[in-house]
This record gives sequence, C-alpha cells and structure tokens, in this order.
Amino acid sequence: MNLLLVEAEEICRGQVLLEGRRAAHVRAVLQARPGDTLRVGVVGGCQGRGRVLAVDEAAVRLELALDGPPPAPPPLELILALPRPIMLQRILKQATVMGMRRLHLVKSQKVEKSYFASPVLAPDKVRSLLLAGMEQARDTWLPEVRIYRQFRPFVEDVLPGLSGPGLLAHPEADRTLSEVFVLPTATAPLRLAIGPEGGWSDYELGMFAQAGFARFSMGSRILHVDTAVVALMAQIDLLCQLGRRAKR
Amino acid sequence: MNLLLVEAEEICRGQVLLEGRRAAHVRAVLQARPGDTLRVGVVGGCQGRGRVLAVDEAAVRLELALDGPPPAPPPLELILALPRPIMLQRILKQATVMGMRRLHLVKSQKVEKSYFASPVLAPDKVRSLLLAGMEQARDTWLPEVRIYRQFRPFVEDVLPGLSGPGLLAHPEADRTLSEVFVLPTATAPLRLAIGPEGGWSDYELGMFAQAGFARFSMGSRILHVDTAVVALMAQIDLLCQLGRRAKR
Repeated sequence: MNLLLVEAEEICRGQVLLEGRRAAHVRAVLQARPGDTLRVGVVGGCQGRGRVLAVDEAAVRLELALDGPPPAPPPLELILALPRPIMLQRILKQATVMGMRRLHLVKSQKVEKSYFASPVLAPDKVRSLLLAGMEQARDTWLPEVRIYRQFRPFVEDVLPGLSGPGLLAHPEADRTLSEVFVLPTATAPLRLAIGPEGGWSDYELGMFAQAGFARFSMGSRILHVDTAVVALMAQIDLLCQLGRRAKR
Repeated sequence: MNLLLVEAEEICRGQVLLEGRRAAHVRAVLQARPGDTLRVGVVGGCQGRGRVLAVDEAAVRLELALDGPPPAPPPLELILALPRPIMLQRILKQATVMGMRRLHLVKSQKVEKSYFASPVLAPDKVRSLLLAGMEQARDTWLPEVRIYRQFRPFVEDVLPGLSGPGLLAHPEADRTLSEVFVLPTATAPLRLAIGPEGGWSDYELGMFAQAGFARFSMGSRILHVDTAVVALMAQIDLLCQLGRRAKR
C-alpha cells in the first residue's frame, strides 16, 4: 500500500477515523506513531498528507491536508472479453495499477456463460481489487467497471457512443500497434479491445471494424490475457510519451 | 499449451513417445487422434509438426517433421533482485513468455535471505516454469537462470563481463526508458536491471553505475515487480521494433 485511500464521506472536519484493514496497515506495516505523516488520497479526489493524531488497537485518527490536485482521467479505456475469474481478478488490480479510465467486460462467443456468475464480479469484490490497484499505483482515480452479459447491447448501444480512437488486438492483423496508434486526448481516450483466449468471432470482429476499430497484431508470441493487458497498456503509455514529445 | 515441447534426447528415429502431462494434454485438451498433426518444438532447437501415430491411455506416439529454424537468442537479459517466491514464480513464467535470453537473480540489501531457500528455486521447479512459458509463447528458446546468493561476486565477476548496453529502473532517475534506450544487437543484448520493492542500496546503485548502467524512471506510478517486468519487457520490445524500422 503506497497510498492510504479514504472516502470523501469518511472525512469530518478535516479528520478521518480508520478502522479494520487500513488501521492495521498503519499500525503493523507503517508502524506509525502520533505526529507521523502518511501519504493519503481521497477516492476520486485529491491527494495529500495525513498527520497521525492517535493510534490504538482499534483505530487510527488522522488530520488531513489534501492539497494535491484531483486525478486527470487516464487516456485509456479497456474493452475485454470477460476472462476466467482467476485471471479477471489479477487484471482488475493490474490494469488499475497501470492506469485505466474505464473497463468494459463483455460477453463474446468464446466466453463461458458461467464466468458471469463468478463472485469476483460482485461489486464489493471488484471495488476492493480496484482500490488495491490504486493503493499500489498511488492513484485516486477509481476506474468504472461495466459488465455486459450479451455482446449485442454492448455493440449496438455502447460502441457507437465511444468517441475516441479504437484499437483491437488480433493475431492475424497485418499491422503492429505503433502503426495503428493514434495519440488520445482528454476528451477522446483510446479504446483498446482484447479478445478471449480463442479470439473474437468473425461477427464480433465485423462489429468492431464497423465501429472503426483498427486491428493490430502483437507478433508471433502468444500471451495470456493478463500478460497482454499489462504489455499493451505499457506500450500504449510509451507511445503516448513519444507522441507528446514529438508534438512539442 | 500452444507448442508441445520435447527434449532432443527423447527423439528416436524421428519419433517421440510422450507420457504423463504432455500425453494427457494431447488426449484431453487437444483431443488428438491418429493422423492429426500438432505443433511441436525441441527445447533449444527447431520447431515443426508432429503427426499422431498412436494414442492410448498411457502414451502418445508422434512422428516429427522439424523444419523450422532454431530460435534466435532474444535480445534481452534480465537482472532481478530476487523477488518473493510467489512473485518469482509468476516472473519466471511471464518473462519467458515475453522472451528473455537469460535471467540473473541476485541478492540485494533489501532481499530477505530466506528467499534463497524457496522451493521455487529448485532447478526442476525453475525449469518447469520456464517450459510453461515457452509452451505458452510458442518458443523453443530456454532461458538460462543464474542465482547469486551474494551481490559482490555478481558485481565483481559477472557485471564487468556483460558487454551489451545496461539499463536500470530507478524511481528517482531523471530520464525515461526511451531516453536511455540503446538498440541491442545479436552480440550485444540489452541488460535490464530491476531492483527489490524497497529499491537498490546506494552501494548497489554505485556498482551498477560503475558498470555503465544508465538509470531511468518508470514515472509516478509504483508497480509490483512482476508487473514492472512485463511492462518494461513490452516497452523494450516496442522500442526495438521502432529502432529497427528507423534504421531501414
């Protein structure tokens, strides 16, 4: 935990009272004592410092000074064919660590229906994984996670409304990521679609193409979905850096 | 398993007899029958096809046609402060999936000594994780893994002998990866050093600097070591692609 996250509604007159997991972390891992200052962030809001006022076995009281700006929305939105629960769990955390604006989890022909019944998709579980990623990355941006149990409503109602450039990872594409990459902006984030282990169906590929998604290949190596998510997010981050530098 | 791996010494007159895990995979997952052909590779050697001659409950017999070239050594060598065993396990597999030539696991001041006693470091366990990565990525290059229980022998005997460019991820560096990146060649692979969660000590940083390693920062987000390994390997792969394209 590199950032202690609190909810806005937990703050009362500039102070917050932590109990449970966070209090235990402050006590046992950070070994904080009254007078120490800790790095604190508000979920969806500012960052700053918290001065420890009191520590006991049950709780920790902090006085907050939150002068850091609220987070800018990350320029990347992920569209994933719902992965196996164990993989989804890793992806929810890791993709948050890497910085995503929003995550769309969609049904695809090769996605088992049973995956949608996984306890990993329970809102509290999703939220705890996102928060763990934010605590690790030191970010207060809470990604939104949307779940589509059918492909059609996603493709008909959601896809046309996505305004930024769309990219789709596909083993048989001719071009590479850097060849199809378009620099995202604050109002036009990049949409990255990653299929299931067996790939999108032809129908699904057609719908993405109709929505303007450009296909690219990741090369001859075959990556697990969780590895592909981290690898592609890292490459897009690098291309954003290079693109912004070239513009200067 | 996207590639069935066999050892050179298992091949006899162009045929191989598989038992255990691989036979079970061919039977249960691939559901192969006599006459089917499977993608096969020899550890450290060529790739090609295997025609199924016989399948029974105990074994699978294949006739091999190995006409693909042996693998080129990947241009990246990893130097890692030995991570926690559970993380090491993921890294051994994932870094192999991403393609590494060799892995040096070294002691650092902030690495717990007990990590070196982990069963994950047993040669058979290491090998099985590397093979799992090769099977996933469809590669026959078997990375070499070296373990240094002390930092000094590594830094005095090994580091000076590494001839390629050296890069070191360090939170406080001024430059980014793309600013310090040098295109590796077949004879001068890139050496990437990633420290423990608490960072390298000043002494260790000094020794890497003396050996010519350039420091770079990964930005403000703090990644777990396993995420950092995948992210950096992906970014280096992209920079290699861009560098080779610019040379043409």
